[in-house]
Amino acid sequence: MDTRPRLRLALTAGEPAGVGPELLVRLAAIPFDAELVAIADRGLLERAAARCGLDIQLIDDNAPAPALATAVQLRVHHVPMPAPEQPGAPDPANARYVLATLAEAADGCLAGRYDAVVTAPLQKSSINDAGIAFTGHTEFLAERAGVDVVMMLASPELRVALATTHLPLSAVPAAIDGPLLQRVLRTVHAELRRKFGIDEPRIAVLGLNPHAGEGGHLGREEIDTIIPALDALRGEGMELLGPLPADTAFVPAMRARYDAVLAMYHDQALPVLKSEAFDRTVNLTLGLPFIRTSVDHGTALDLAGSGRADPSSLIAAARMALDLVLRSRRAA
Amino acid sequence: MDTRPRLRLALTAGEPAGVGPELLVRLAAIPFDAELVAIADRGLLERAAARCGLDIQLIDDNAPAPALATAVQLRVHHVPMPAPEQPGAPDPANARYVLATLAEAADGCLAGRYDAVVTAPLQKSSINDAGIAFTGHTEFLAERAGVDVVMMLASPELRVALATTHLPLSAVPAAIDGPLLQRVLRTVHAELRRKFGIDEPRIAVLGLNPHAGEGGHLGREEIDTIIPALDALRGEGMELLGPLPADTAFVPAMRARYDAVLAMYHDQALPVLKSEAFDRTVNLTLGLPFIRTSVDHGTALDLAGSGRADPSSLIAAARMALDLVLRSRRAA
Repeated sequence: MDTRPRLRLALTAGEPAGVGPELLVRLAAIPFDAELVAIADRGLLERAAARCGLDIQLIDDNAPAPALATAVQLRVHHVPMPAPEQPGAPDPANARYVLATLAEAADGCLAGRYDAVVTAPLQKSSINDAGIAFTGHTEFLAERAGVDVVMMLASPELRVALATTHLPLSAVPAAIDGPLLQRVLRTVHAELRRKFGIDEPRIAVLGLNPHAGEGGHLGREEIDTIIPALDALRGEGMELLGPLPADTAFVPAMRARYDAVLAMYHDQALPVLKSEAFDRTVNLTLGLPFIRTSVDHGTALDLAGSGRADPSSLIAAARMALDLVLRSRRAA
Repeated sequence: MDTRPRLRLALTAGEPAGVGPELLVRLAAIPFDAELVAIADRGLLERAAARCGLDIQLIDDNAPAPALATAVQLRVHHVPMPAPEQPGAPDPANARYVLATLAEAADGCLAGRYDAVVTAPLQKSSINDAGIAFTGHTEFLAERAGVDVVMMLASPELRVALATTHLPLSAVPAAIDGPLLQRVLRTVHAELRRKFGIDEPRIAVLGLNPHAGEGGHLGREEIDTIIPALDALRGEGMELLGPLPADTAFVPAMRARYDAVLAMYHDQALPVLKSEAFDRTVNLTLGLPFIRTSVDHGTALDLAGSGRADPSSLIAAARMALDLVLRSRRAA
């Protein structure tokens, strides 16, 4: 008999007026080799299940499992929501509730109550409208855990980390400096070992300029900044490829040579990933002392309440979280 | 009996010390529904064929066809080369010869002697080393024909035009202005009609910033420059989509909505194209009064002379040139 405790994934439902609650109950209806714990308002989940036509039995996370399962079951860590949701119309009155679900997920992971957290999309503007300074899930979790993080997007075929994320293009060149590249690459390298279980990670680093600067003819950042940063890390034994021209870095023969890519900015690599694996692309936060994955789409307010939103990305995010929990245990 | 004259494609061999001459004789060995005319030194082609182990009969372009074909045939417009080629080691003494082959191809297309030109790669640095100001095939042909041009990369699945091409990333934002976008979009639109035979072209335009600026939160170029330019052209009846976030512009559901994409810069779109269709991606020059396609790779000096270079990209370029000749005739 297998006596290992079952893995527990915390799931946040995100914006109550978005598709998150519906995606979450749809995920619960799929066989999954872990215990899923929804961190959300219980009534919100009941109404989302009804909108999806799903018969789901919500069980308080502190209660024992019912002797006989009569329907799909989902454990719930209830966080009360002050205003009822209106699908499609986010209410800033619920902003603090949304953040409380995130805080419980992070604190629960740090305390060992959950093995990983998977987040559904939230509506940043609604939280800002409530007068709360908030730039996103990733930054909130980083601050809560007191660490620097790196954003990674991953499909089953390709892992891409970003040196810069949501910056105007004109601000990107000045943002790329040696200390940033070293910090980001150290995080990516450590996390490929720790969470992905890759003993000797090989990371391909893209140039900033077209053709990786073509020896300085198309920009000097490779020569002045990127190459020295890579050489310093190579001196410590890190296996780095590049800086590579972005346009040929993703051809099949190149992919065989690395475990992950570090892109200098958002639109240099995400179009490749989403073009080939739109609903299988997962957003991961590297650098946290726990595993966090997320859907790679927004709240889809136009679809919310219809019960028709596609849960593929949330399912992919949950599967990747589970896979990483298992990999990181083997690596430990 | 079909009495239409056979289509004639001009092929330039590019850098004599690169893989171009070998690719060209390999192309000649493939069945092709057009007459191929190599514009190159005759001896160079003979030696390239020998290196590839191909038995090719070179026929002077002014001579009548032999009554009996004893081998693969290739018509040649002989341009004498001053220095014998050394595969792998470009000689600036041959720079003017390389340009003379391009000039004959362009002038021959303008005069109606060829229906299109397909170019093998040249070595820009070797031409510069000869003291000649030269920035590339595209610019040379544009100047020869006295027109402005737009670079397009195309595979059977995706066509991408570029608003800027080989610029350092830091120079891109300032280079994008309304007049540029209008000129480029007019050229792309006109050429999709004229050369691709698409009556009502639909063009998707990418934003400059991540998430197409997210309403000004991630950069203002969309609001200040791109949207006004698109609106002006829409007022003239042009069907334009965007500005679109680059990361989701290439998912299958989006591709169904446009005939071509205009990307703001090199690394925003070429990684997608080359990742999915590396050896089927063709470089096209839009805006010329004739059809010009090109391989989408360089001279591969390390492979030159071995007879082992892969002609897939040159074959794709020649097939696309032929396809465009046929489409443009139907459109005319």
